[in-house]
Amino acid sequence: MSEGKIVNGVNVDKLFGTIDAVKDAPDIAKFKFRANNKWVKGGHNNTTIKEFYGAQKDNAHEKPFELDADEPPLLLGEDKGPNPVEYALTALAACVTTSLVYHAAAKGIEIRGVESRLEGDLDLRGFLGISEDVPVGYENIRVYFKIDADISDEQKEYLIQMGQKYSPVFNTISNATPVSVQLDK
Amino acid sequence: MSEGKIVNGVNVDKLFGTIDAVKDAPDIAKFKFRANNKWVKGGHNNTTIKEFYGAQKDNAHEKPFELDADEPPLLLGEDKGPNPVEYALTALAACVTTSLVYHAAAKGIEIRGVESRLEGDLDLRGFLGISEDVPVGYENIRVYFKIDADISDEQKEYLIQMGQKYSPVFNTISNATPVSVQLDK
Repeated sequence: MSEGKIVNGVNVDKLFGTIDAVKDAPDIAKFKFRANNKWVKGGHNNTTIKEFYGAQKDNAHEKPFELDADEPPLLLGEDKGPNPVEYALTALAACVTTSLVYHAAAKGIEIRGVESRLEGDLDLRGFLGISEDVPVGYENIRVYFKIDADISDEQKEYLIQMGQKYSPVFNTISNATPVSVQLDK
Repeated sequence: MSEGKIVNGVNVDKLFGTIDAVKDAPDIAKFKFRANNKWVKGGHNNTTIKEFYGAQKDNAHEKPFELDADEPPLLLGEDKGPNPVEYALTALAACVTTSLVYHAAAKGIEIRGVESRLEGDLDLRGFLGISEDVPVGYENIRVYFKIDADISDEQKEYLIQMGQKYSPVFNTISNATPVSVQLDK
């Protein structure tokens, strides 16, 4: 149904069209992403993702997405969903992958498969308020990619570099991002 | 079935028991969270969360969690799931909420409800490689909390402060966190 050249499932004609449109009118590129969360009980809470602002208008998702988070029993929850730090790894994995795939598409590099595994070190003495000397957040996150494509290891390394460089979540995590938290009275 | 005093759905006797155990043996608190991601097509990929290391052993979730990420049509995807930066907001909302609720429980403060809404500013000129002058990640994230409890606004503000201070995802995002991305040959 769609028109344009498709590489890796990405319509590259539309991608280049978007890039040209943004060059002419940078405000198109100013997005606001949104989420609503509701606490259920203990470590269990539910996030709804339903709309975002971009291309100078509000846009609804086809249907709202509902995401349950919880803690496993070892962390005093009931395991009704991944926990928040597992959602953070999910965001990172998804973002570097998308960034890598879109970048490859723009370069005309066809990819058959991409898999990644992630591991992050977290010392819960921070969360538990036991020590002020350990970081409360992840101390370190490692991401390992496998790419199935007819390209050299050097080209795979290059795609991984591009995946990081242009990934919004990678940059949100690896740089200090301002977060303000306020009481809505 | 469970033993111990429950506040806000959190077993505070177990929480204080965990804190005491960690004080005696800090290695118990060293966790490794893990995720596996597989690309599907275009902006669509799937993350599996199935196990983590903590309390000096590998621990399986009761069942693996599968999370689809995709981009909306405006960003050249098919809207099969929230996009990666929406997952990042989900992680942040869930984490500050859990941190706030557990902290309130530890202080014996009963809460009836917690809701939050989040908004993050993202200029896609970074992702699209159009400008090196705009951040690729979120420029700013705002979180607004509503707390339903028989406490003063000052106490609510205090809980929000504690929610931030002890939230692993808040700290992962608001501080620069090292992320290494490598090719798994």
